[in-house]
Amino acid sequence: MITLSLIGIGTGNLDHVTLAAVRALNNADLILLPRKGESKSDLINLRRLLCERLLEAPVTTKIVEFDLPSRDDHNDYLSAVDDWHAAIASVWAQLMDEHLPNGGRVGMLVWGDPSLYDSSLRITQRLSAAGKQVDIEVVPGITSLQVLTAEHKIPLNALAEPVQITTGRRLRERGWPNDAATVAVMLDSGGAFTTLPFEDTYIWWGAYLGMDKQCLIKGWLSEVSDQIIQRRAELRDTHGWIMDIYLLAKKPEM
Amino acid sequence: MITLSLIGIGTGNLDHVTLAAVRALNNADLILLPRKGESKSDLINLRRLLCERLLEAPVTTKIVEFDLPSRDDHNDYLSAVDDWHAAIASVWAQLMDEHLPNGGRVGMLVWGDPSLYDSSLRITQRLSAAGKQVDIEVVPGITSLQVLTAEHKIPLNALAEPVQITTGRRLRERGWPNDAATVAVMLDSGGAFTTLPFEDTYIWWGAYLGMDKQCLIKGWLSEVSDQIIQRRAELRDTHGWIMDIYLLAKKPEM
Repeated sequence: MITLSLIGIGTGNLDHVTLAAVRALNNADLILLPRKGESKSDLINLRRLLCERLLEAPVTTKIVEFDLPSRDDHNDYLSAVDDWHAAIASVWAQLMDEHLPNGGRVGMLVWGDPSLYDSSLRITQRLSAAGKQVDIEVVPGITSLQVLTAEHKIPLNALAEPVQITTGRRLRERGWPNDAATVAVMLDSGGAFTTLPFEDTYIWWGAYLGMDKQCLIKGWLSEVSDQIIQRRAELRDTHGWIMDIYLLAKKPEM
Repeated sequence: MITLSLIGIGTGNLDHVTLAAVRALNNADLILLPRKGESKSDLINLRRLLCERLLEAPVTTKIVEFDLPSRDDHNDYLSAVDDWHAAIASVWAQLMDEHLPNGGRVGMLVWGDPSLYDSSLRITQRLSAAGKQVDIEVVPGITSLQVLTAEHKIPLNALAEPVQITTGRRLRERGWPNDAATVAVMLDSGGAFTTLPFEDTYIWWGAYLGMDKQCLIKGWLSEVSDQIIQRRAELRDTHGWIMDIYLLAKKPEM
């Protein structure tokens, strides 16, 4: 029997790893590390570093790297994602068969927390379709959203008010959500906030949150929108990739 | 000069504490622990236990307990909360003057994460009004919402869909938020979900998340609503207090 532990590892800041994550890593017989291509090699490097620093007896834990299948975006978005998850599940199943033929504990290092805009839980559901029965265990991790608010020293929600967590794509398509004083935006391929009316909207932006190259900008959209767009382009050129998120509020208490 | 560290400690499961939180605790000269009255003595006991287990040199860190002022709910909700925050800030300032007259590092243990439905950041803003200048530092912590999804082994968001995080009070007043496939409800004084239409709505409920007495129930609202209400009342009778949250989804992918 296989037990698969989805281990939230936070955002690249080793200090944000929990004691439960350290234990889950050390209990694993096999750790699978996905490679996402050269441009995002920082991400695999951070995962390698984390294993190196936190594994107490690396000799008993087998670390196997694999190339993540690439997503075919010719279809519509949801069905492309669906096919992609099935392809990843099939790779996971092969690696488990190969490296743990008699069962054991597998650890997967999940960026942030396995619950928030992450595919791992959906991919595990595909494992049974790929003929693989596994027990699942989820270890929560600090999300980039929590690092964003911690670094800006702000609450996520206005007092007694709701918060919407959404995607850049959705913000572009639907505009400001109803019933939300505060909106957190993730997975934005760039500047979805420019589609909003700039009046009275404040933004707290952050890129590479938790990492040494972390960059923060805050201000009224009317004043910092161009600055964020420009800084984002420069950072992506410099590092070859970028991950950024932001929080928006209408006329916030300051 | 005072540096005040708001340290997210998760939900009572010592394993969910981060390495950064352990370090912040150990760097503090003074730790302030609020007492919230007899009925919630579990909460102060958990904070004491956490200090006992995680402080490496307890002799150099002064731990001071204080009675949290009680909230006067005769006014309207927001102004009652406002007065209460000012009263707490004034107690914090007195304790800092008394125990760190020459400045130093103060640690406050914050349940969950300081960003999510927590007052600490707003109270710190009041410190300057109370004549106290402090540097603030925020250490993120695992929230009960992350433990809810981890224990139920579910994602927070449906694929590429937004999530609304809201309060029981708001759910009762406004019903299901627009633009949200999934709704997470916190601070519910009891059963706000019973005001929703039961058709096609699924609930993942959890009480005392992360603690030994954790209780989970999931199912279609039409089938488990009564069971949750009853179990909640029993648990509150048994333990003298309850903290519970839940996630709702309309016709979720199962």
